[in-house]
Amino acid sequence: MAVTVVGSVAFDSIETPAGRRERCLGGAATYFSLSASYFTDVRVIAVVGEDFGKPQEEVFQARNIDTRGIEHTAGKSFFWEGSYLDNLNEAKTQITELNVFAAFNPKIPDAYRDSEFLFLANIDPVLQRRVREAMPQAKLVAGDTMNYWIKGHRTALLEVLKGLDILLINDTETKMLAGNNNLVQAARAVMALGPKALVVKHGEYGATLFHGANPKGASAERSFRAPAMPLEEVVDPTGAGDSFAGGFFGYLASQPEQSPAVFRRAMFYGCVMGSFACERFGTERLQELTRSEIDNRFNLFRELTHLD
Amino acid sequence: MAVTVVGSVAFDSIETPAGRRERCLGGAATYFSLSASYFTDVRVIAVVGEDFGKPQEEVFQARNIDTRGIEHTAGKSFFWEGSYLDNLNEAKTQITELNVFAAFNPKIPDAYRDSEFLFLANIDPVLQRRVREAMPQAKLVAGDTMNYWIKGHRTALLEVLKGLDILLINDTETKMLAGNNNLVQAARAVMALGPKALVVKHGEYGATLFHGANPKGASAERSFRAPAMPLEEVVDPTGAGDSFAGGFFGYLASQPEQSPAVFRRAMFYGCVMGSFACERFGTERLQELTRSEIDNRFNLFRELTHLD
Repeated sequence: MAVTVVGSVAFDSIETPAGRRERCLGGAATYFSLSASYFTDVRVIAVVGEDFGKPQEEVFQARNIDTRGIEHTAGKSFFWEGSYLDNLNEAKTQITELNVFAAFNPKIPDAYRDSEFLFLANIDPVLQRRVREAMPQAKLVAGDTMNYWIKGHRTALLEVLKGLDILLINDTETKMLAGNNNLVQAARAVMALGPKALVVKHGEYGATLFHGANPKGASAERSFRAPAMPLEEVVDPTGAGDSFAGGFFGYLASQPEQSPAVFRRAMFYGCVMGSFACERFGTERLQELTRSEIDNRFNLFRELTHLD
Repeated sequence: MAVTVVGSVAFDSIETPAGRRERCLGGAATYFSLSASYFTDVRVIAVVGEDFGKPQEEVFQARNIDTRGIEHTAGKSFFWEGSYLDNLNEAKTQITELNVFAAFNPKIPDAYRDSEFLFLANIDPVLQRRVREAMPQAKLVAGDTMNYWIKGHRTALLEVLKGLDILLINDTETKMLAGNNNLVQAARAVMALGPKALVVKHGEYGATLFHGANPKGASAERSFRAPAMPLEEVVDPTGAGDSFAGGFFGYLASQPEQSPAVFRRAMFYGCVMGSFACERFGTERLQELTRSEIDNRFNLFRELTHLD
């Protein structure tokens, strides 16, 4: 089944211990789309400026991503500049220029309206809600958010959470959203706000899935932990979380049903795609993967964690 | 096979968000012994003062731990006071009084000399080396250390590392010892110093085993990651790392051979014992476990991480 994603398509200037890149293609919706495209059809809703041209368009085309929902307007695309020189696990933002993104009003092509899988990447929760309401046919809705919205736009965010099947955020965001420093207690509190499942991303330590009653109702609360792979070299962690989300949700959408076993495999695919994203600058690695490279790494992750 | 451990037996005063305990039995060798005692026979080498009496002795006796190597001398036992109020993952030390430990000169009872498994807990590397040399029959030797010895006693520590089969340390210590911030590269550098295997403990995220050529020589470098369990309540993390070591090494010693599959299970048992240690203050939880509780949690850890 096709996945529709709404989020940012941007240009990023990135500095890491491995080097520096100017204005490479970035944005949450970009990383998500490229990653999910290895599993299922992907449709993007975003806005870009005049600096988004043929070379950028071709990155999406090469992966057969539907870009009819990318609106082109006068002005410049969203621009972000960040550095990981001090800490590879956390970007230090140097510049954020919203540009055309400041007036983003998502427009949903008619051709997208049969999407049963919807991903609301990290944008203003008011926009997330608007897209969700405009796509009532979506049967599985997942989303991301960040500390900025949790701190300053809580009311709007709580409205989004009510309608989410799956929320994907990191440790700090989970604890901040719940106001509780214990991850298990915080996860429970977050799930009480709406999401039926919560994926907490731990960066280099992988991710944990918390979910409520499983389909058989056997247990009130279950969790599943997928590992990140110890990487020889982390070139650029930008987009790793969005690539996780793309692998996770893209795999879910590719399966005939979303059973607990499928969720577990989706967690592994999420970690696999996140690990690939870190191996090169920007989207470089995600543009040129093969499904067999992905499945080989999936099997490595299995070996890394399984007893037998 | 019996395991001999040399390390501290101490009194700890601990403050955590869950409360405060004064002068409970602690020390690396104590946590290690109690944890390992669920898997194999354990013998302790340590020194205590006059404040170590019958109630403390009985904690070891109840687990059939051989205490003939615990030397009793005039003075007070090693005392540590720490707080986890700011951060459950890292103790803030308030007081360290070495007391009788300052003049510790490990004495090895003759009855211990056939121990084939030796654990050198976190003490002065000069003492670690002395014990290792005094027990040449030990066929598997593992050890721990800490930032204090890595920074200020490097030469002595390097001598110990040369003779170690397995080193167990945390992320920060691994990176500090190697002078490299990438965990994979740091692990390789540390193993080049001597240890054939390296266990890096990640606190609430579990632990990773790095090992060189496996017995079949199939691969130059392999790793295995065992999870920590997301805990509803962390009452007191004191001793979690030593309890990990006890479960890990105790299980290894209990097996007829140390195959890669046994190492993997040992990693799981380490994480299991570390998770139990956190559930109550001090050694409370480790004193009253049953092997079936341990194996039930082992199975929970398997469910938490395994795809099928």
